[in-house]
Amino acid sequence: MTINQVGRDIPDQYANQYGVYAGELTNIKDYQRATKKVHPVKPRDSKLLASIHDAIIQTGLKDGMTISFHHHFREGDYIMNMVLAEIAKMGIKDLAIAPSSIANVHEPLIDYIKQGVVTHVTSSGLRDKVGAAISEGILADPVVIRSHGGRARAIERGDIHIDVAFLGAPSADEYGNANGVKGKTTCGSLGYAMVDAQYADQVVIITDSLMPYPNTPISIPQTLVDYVVEVDAIGDPEGIAKGATRFTKNPKELLIAEYAAKMITESTYFKDGFSFQTGTGGAALAVTRFLKQAMIDQNLKASFVLGGITNAMAELLEDGLVEKVIDVQDFDHPSAISLGKNSEHYEIDAAMYASPLSKGSVINQLDIAILSALEIDTQFNVNVITGSDGVLRGASGGHSDTSTACKMSMVIAPIVRGRIPTIVDQVTTVVTPGSSIDVVVTELGIAINPLRTDLIAAFKDSKIPQLTIEALKEKAYAITGEPAPIKYGDRLVALIEYRDGTLIDVVKNV
Amino acid sequence: MTINQVGRDIPDQYANQYGVYAGELTNIKDYQRATKKVHPVKPRDSKLLASIHDAIIQTGLKDGMTISFHHHFREGDYIMNMVLAEIAKMGIKDLAIAPSSIANVHEPLIDYIKQGVVTHVTSSGLRDKVGAAISEGILADPVVIRSHGGRARAIERGDIHIDVAFLGAPSADEYGNANGVKGKTTCGSLGYAMVDAQYADQVVIITDSLMPYPNTPISIPQTLVDYVVEVDAIGDPEGIAKGATRFTKNPKELLIAEYAAKMITESTYFKDGFSFQTGTGGAALAVTRFLKQAMIDQNLKASFVLGGITNAMAELLEDGLVEKVIDVQDFDHPSAISLGKNSEHYEIDAAMYASPLSKGSVINQLDIAILSALEIDTQFNVNVITGSDGVLRGASGGHSDTSTACKMSMVIAPIVRGRIPTIVDQVTTVVTPGSSIDVVVTELGIAINPLRTDLIAAFKDSKIPQLTIEALKEKAYAITGEPAPIKYGDRLVALIEYRDGTLIDVVKNV
Repeated sequence: MTINQVGRDIPDQYANQYGVYAGELTNIKDYQRATKKVHPVKPRDSKLLASIHDAIIQTGLKDGMTISFHHHFREGDYIMNMVLAEIAKMGIKDLAIAPSSIANVHEPLIDYIKQGVVTHVTSSGLRDKVGAAISEGILADPVVIRSHGGRARAIERGDIHIDVAFLGAPSADEYGNANGVKGKTTCGSLGYAMVDAQYADQVVIITDSLMPYPNTPISIPQTLVDYVVEVDAIGDPEGIAKGATRFTKNPKELLIAEYAAKMITESTYFKDGFSFQTGTGGAALAVTRFLKQAMIDQNLKASFVLGGITNAMAELLEDGLVEKVIDVQDFDHPSAISLGKNSEHYEIDAAMYASPLSKGSVINQLDIAILSALEIDTQFNVNVITGSDGVLRGASGGHSDTSTACKMSMVIAPIVRGRIPTIVDQVTTVVTPGSSIDVVVTELGIAINPLRTDLIAAFKDSKIPQLTIEALKEKAYAITGEPAPIKYGDRLVALIEYRDGTLIDVVKNV
Repeated sequence: MTINQVGRDIPDQYANQYGVYAGELTNIKDYQRATKKVHPVKPRDSKLLASIHDAIIQTGLKDGMTISFHHHFREGDYIMNMVLAEIAKMGIKDLAIAPSSIANVHEPLIDYIKQGVVTHVTSSGLRDKVGAAISEGILADPVVIRSHGGRARAIERGDIHIDVAFLGAPSADEYGNANGVKGKTTCGSLGYAMVDAQYADQVVIITDSLMPYPNTPISIPQTLVDYVVEVDAIGDPEGIAKGATRFTKNPKELLIAEYAAKMITESTYFKDGFSFQTGTGGAALAVTRFLKQAMIDQNLKASFVLGGITNAMAELLEDGLVEKVIDVQDFDHPSAISLGKNSEHYEIDAAMYASPLSKGSVINQLDIAILSALEIDTQFNVNVITGSDGVLRGASGGHSDTSTACKMSMVIAPIVRGRIPTIVDQVTTVVTPGSSIDVVVTELGIAINPLRTDLIAAFKDSKIPQLTIEALKEKAYAITGEPAPIKYGDRLVALIEYRDGTLIDVVKNV
């Protein structure tokens, strides 16, 4: 065992293979960019194939290879299930899958794992049944959980080498030029898929809207695409926006949002040209609404908003309150449409969004990030991947990326959820180290990380209620009682990579 | 000596190193994409440097390295001279330079070569005094002439490895996001530079218009940029458009254009959704004008026009006669402005334009290419690099790329220029093999390549005057007399790469 910088035990086998977390920037080093094997496409060659089956044949996919998918269709994705069904039928085994994330809709994956079709998994997240099954130990080797920036890093450095990327595209021409803003199943940005297309040996574009050549705008260019397959449907538009939240009426969430917005508007960062990223939760959307009013009142304009984009962000652009929307993923239909029609709404790939190994990602220029949490501990460490029962059910997302890179990272959360404390002594699983978190915002008030002496000084006279993180925990425990320890098994079911590729934590079976 | 497929002697040393031309697609093979060393840029790092001098220091540029430039500023470029002046002053020697092309304005290069600052050169073209000096033998090792697609290929495959790319950008922000459509010295597309940015170990953006972050549209993203330098001026806007031609009134050029346009409109390719590329000469622009009228008359719309773009192309888009303009380079100011404002005017990089090693370049989808020539021989081989005196003064450009990839390649040229025949027994230097050329169009009529039996059959009843290529040559020689053989020296001054990297010809000193 090696104990890493956030105090977590990492078994030697994995400590040796991955290295252990030793600080946010310690392992950001020069590297050689990953290469790939290219099969040039000659004049008069066609890329259009009749079926996913044919594409699997043509790519020469075989046992032991790594394939990838993107999660831009979220709960509406048909691609991963379709491709794995065909692969299973063809008897290919022992595949590694490297989707950018896994949703509830991918429940059939459980059977493919049990059948030995899929034997290795890396993902940002694991939801509900898939997460539970993996937590039970259906995979011999642990899942590797990576942040969005960490996945881009892994692909750029060759830690993940994708043999074949199967990429759903809302529109594409026969030569492979693809985007997410035209077609029947628009998802907006293809930011995660763009990295796969850049580095995979072979790329198969699967679309349900074949367009005349050349299809523009071009998110994934023909120069990166080997084959194109047209299918009846690549996804369910309803599912893409599933879980997207409306403006909350929950008083607790509104209070959290109000404190968060006040923290921002009272900070030195709130000035003309500031930038921010929010999530999709009810409180996060409410923060955006409060900020919008403050921007109008103070006649301020943001330079950019970033991230997973919602309609609330697209509206800020429409209203002239932000100069640009920088978009790696869209969470709802209006934001996807905005990307297609507004030239100041700009698509970027996941490496540009958040890779720690790029020559500077956009999060490095970000002022404020508003983040969520399943748990926060008194060291400010954050868990966004496991429930308090130790079961995998969340997603690493851009949490550890944005929080370390931006100027002020704010985690917003209620102190308890039902009978479960959010603020705890020790998070079940560390995804983001406490040193990356500047402020925790709850319905009782804010706790500023003691490391941010500048913020503590700046807010000493603020009327926002301020508590220590320990006090917040005590208040949570006063409601819920001290949580009982989780009874883990002795098998590892997940490795939690920090964005630099070292291990920040591991998850055992329950 | 090895004799290649177009009958040219290639000295063994170079034949072994590069291989010899053996057919257009013979050497298009699977390969590993080139890698590069990346120095990640961390949060809170700045990329902005005070001067080119500081950028040279920071990149660690040293003797023997390879540096690159782009030629989007054409005769208005200040960057290459500024950077080489600073490098010379700092005493760095023995550099290889890999600009996408070299213009007259780069005459100071002659001295840097004589001083040993620059000892290796690759370029698409060499003009006037630089070409003459190199033809005299001022370089110990021959210049390598590459087509636009060939240069992209060389970079993708690692035949050229760029240590530092110094890329002029009409606008950029402090983090390196750059484009050519905003700022004081707009050049439009940065298509050639985009390849350098993608593959160079280090990239220095030099701009005279520093913009607020994030600068969009993004032709070169921050993720590929190490340093940003602001200077007073990166180029002369007048020089960018220098040599751009107006509609010709020369009767000979008009006749050539009329025959070329008729050949197109009578061909099976002329239908709704067809595509074409023209050059910038007076006759080429006249072809576009004739085609425009035919499109209006027959109510046809082109799917795309491609290439080096002129205002004539941008106007077709404005007029609704083409769906899209696909743009690797702009030859005048109006086309650069069009790229910035019209979302159907689309920027692509040189690899997407023409690389034979990409997974399919746009030229592979092109119907018709209209090309120029310094000489054409009775085997249809084309010379666009040396004068009839054997002196380097032209440019390989996209000639060999487009001609082989498109469905009908047309070379337009008068049979003589002054007292020099254009149609000859043997071209001075082969840049494009005759097998890639489908039709030669002159003021006397057209000669269809006998290999294109389909075209010969289709045009047997056409009223366009048709001659054999031999007959055209005889008519040329009847005016000029048989050209005297060139007296070469015994040193090689240039290697002419075919787009696949093999040698199609060599040039000796004169």
